[in-house]
Amino acid sequence: MNHTASSGRTPWPFPGPQPGEEPPGARQTIADIGEFELIAQITRGLSQNDQVELGPGDDAAIIHTRGGRTLCSVDILVEGVHFRRDWSSAMDVGRKAVAVNVADIEAMGARPIGILMGFSAPADLSLTWVRYFIQGVREECDRAGVSLIGGDITKARDITISITILGDAGPEGPVLRSGARPGDLVALKGRVGWAAAGLAALSKGFRTPKAVVEAQQVPQPPYGAGREAARAGASAMIDVSDGLLADLGHMAQLSGVSIDVHRSALGMPEPVRSVGQATGVDPYVFLLTGGEDHALAATFPPGAVPAGWTVIGTVGEAPASGQQAVTVDGRAWEGQQGYDHFH
Amino acid sequence: MNHTASSGRTPWPFPGPQPGEEPPGARQTIADIGEFELIAQITRGLSQNDQVELGPGDDAAIIHTRGGRTLCSVDILVEGVHFRRDWSSAMDVGRKAVAVNVADIEAMGARPIGILMGFSAPADLSLTWVRYFIQGVREECDRAGVSLIGGDITKARDITISITILGDAGPEGPVLRSGARPGDLVALKGRVGWAAAGLAALSKGFRTPKAVVEAQQVPQPPYGAGREAARAGASAMIDVSDGLLADLGHMAQLSGVSIDVHRSALGMPEPVRSVGQATGVDPYVFLLTGGEDHALAATFPPGAVPAGWTVIGTVGEAPASGQQAVTVDGRAWEGQQGYDHFH
Repeated sequence: MNHTASSGRTPWPFPGPQPGEEPPGARQTIADIGEFELIAQITRGLSQNDQVELGPGDDAAIIHTRGGRTLCSVDILVEGVHFRRDWSSAMDVGRKAVAVNVADIEAMGARPIGILMGFSAPADLSLTWVRYFIQGVREECDRAGVSLIGGDITKARDITISITILGDAGPEGPVLRSGARPGDLVALKGRVGWAAAGLAALSKGFRTPKAVVEAQQVPQPPYGAGREAARAGASAMIDVSDGLLADLGHMAQLSGVSIDVHRSALGMPEPVRSVGQATGVDPYVFLLTGGEDHALAATFPPGAVPAGWTVIGTVGEAPASGQQAVTVDGRAWEGQQGYDHFH
Repeated sequence: MNHTASSGRTPWPFPGPQPGEEPPGARQTIADIGEFELIAQITRGLSQNDQVELGPGDDAAIIHTRGGRTLCSVDILVEGVHFRRDWSSAMDVGRKAVAVNVADIEAMGARPIGILMGFSAPADLSLTWVRYFIQGVREECDRAGVSLIGGDITKARDITISITILGDAGPEGPVLRSGARPGDLVALKGRVGWAAAGLAALSKGFRTPKAVVEAQQVPQPPYGAGREAARAGASAMIDVSDGLLADLGHMAQLSGVSIDVHRSALGMPEPVRSVGQATGVDPYVFLLTGGEDHALAATFPPGAVPAGWTVIGTVGEAPASGQQAVTVDGRAWEGQQGYDHFH
């Protein structure tokens, strides 16, 4: 069933405790209010952007796209796999769930319009957690200019958040992964390695450096940069979710090209370097193979790279048989390129 | 990350054992092949319908809608909540996951186009199970005329399937829940109570009557009936997923009307009656409050009800304050109206 809009009594955003500061007596769970009241609380007072024709409350939502081309993508976040409640606040989880999805539409050079939210949770989950989570979802939606247009809620053992995002290809897009051509430059906008360094720090029990821990908790994709790249004439684009080398590998494979990354062009952010030092990991491993920051990597014809993007490599002819499609400073990268969920 | 298309070695549909007949030595798990090979197997040889511009393999899929209006809806199926592997074959689960979603687009009087599939599962899940599940997804997609256009795969403790469906409002639709008017007739196409009776039978350890058990395993929404209703001038429509009274209640509330259901018009299917007898449950409880068959309930001006639809009630003025919006033979229904996930 879909989110059903309804009127209600509680103002939104509700006044309430900070995460981790639940007052005595506030041990309400989602079972206490039930599915339909929960949906009512989630959808109460939602505003919809100008391309949403019908928001939550019917069997389906309706969006309008100017050219009739709708983009869609889904990303799932599972507790214990993509987030931990002791490492991330509810609000952070909500923000992250939206951000990773918006990045997929940005990576097509398109305008994000609306999200559908699938939310599965145990019946005894604290209502306070859910409320802060929803507040995070709403805040990140506002930052990205997208609307919450529908969803589904079910019971489950673990919290699982499945967000589908819809976008409008518009006049600029779409920019596919498959359009990179030999001679193009590879450019990056946004951060790489920060979230992975944050995860490494958290895994060792550290809560610092704060900048990378926060990057793990909530990625900061460069909103708007995808359309900027499309307007500038990007030939291919991807968001870095699996790791820079792995994602450039997807792009190289689909484009039938090779890509060489110039390591020094990436720079070495101080907090990433310091996590490398503290954990005994080569910090370039974070930069080259860490996912989850959702930077945008795009290829451009020479001269077309927009301001604010960093050139980090070059596109060459298809690799010879048996050769790696993505190299670092002209050499094969030893080791894992990115993350595989079942390995 | 999204499904990435790739070429592969195994033909699809693969020749293999029947569910429950896994041969010795076939204990491969999804961890054995990894996320990317699993995605390759899922997307291998997929065909796309004529409104899909870009299928799996990029950051987002792209569909084309004729009038520029895209419908979207999401439904989640969780193992242990919506299906049990000892009660349903993998193929049944795959078929059900698609069917329940198509029903949401049918209920808008629209054309279903494509689905995104979020799939979360434990790493040690048998590959055979996944392959049959995917075969079920593909078969039901073919039956409904929709394409698998993308998705996401993650690790999780329980199997969770989150399917988003996109549709095209087209010239007939959309038909909202909110358009019912006093004087309209309420008509039904498809089955109600069968899946609930099947669940009751399975819960008591029975595997019969086969017809209702199969209805629980795979619902059979009346594909095409939604657009049929839209063309005939349906004023409101909903698919029966929570239970007939509950879903008519949603419709009545959003339309600002009351609805009276004529119980005798529903008939009493023999297998539903027999489960009632065997379990000591009034079989009308199944018919009136059982969800999951995904019949379509619609309202029509008198004279507009299409052939093949059964008139089951009438629409009246908004209920007086404190009165139930949905009545059965003019009287309030005693008891639960449908299913609440957290109650």
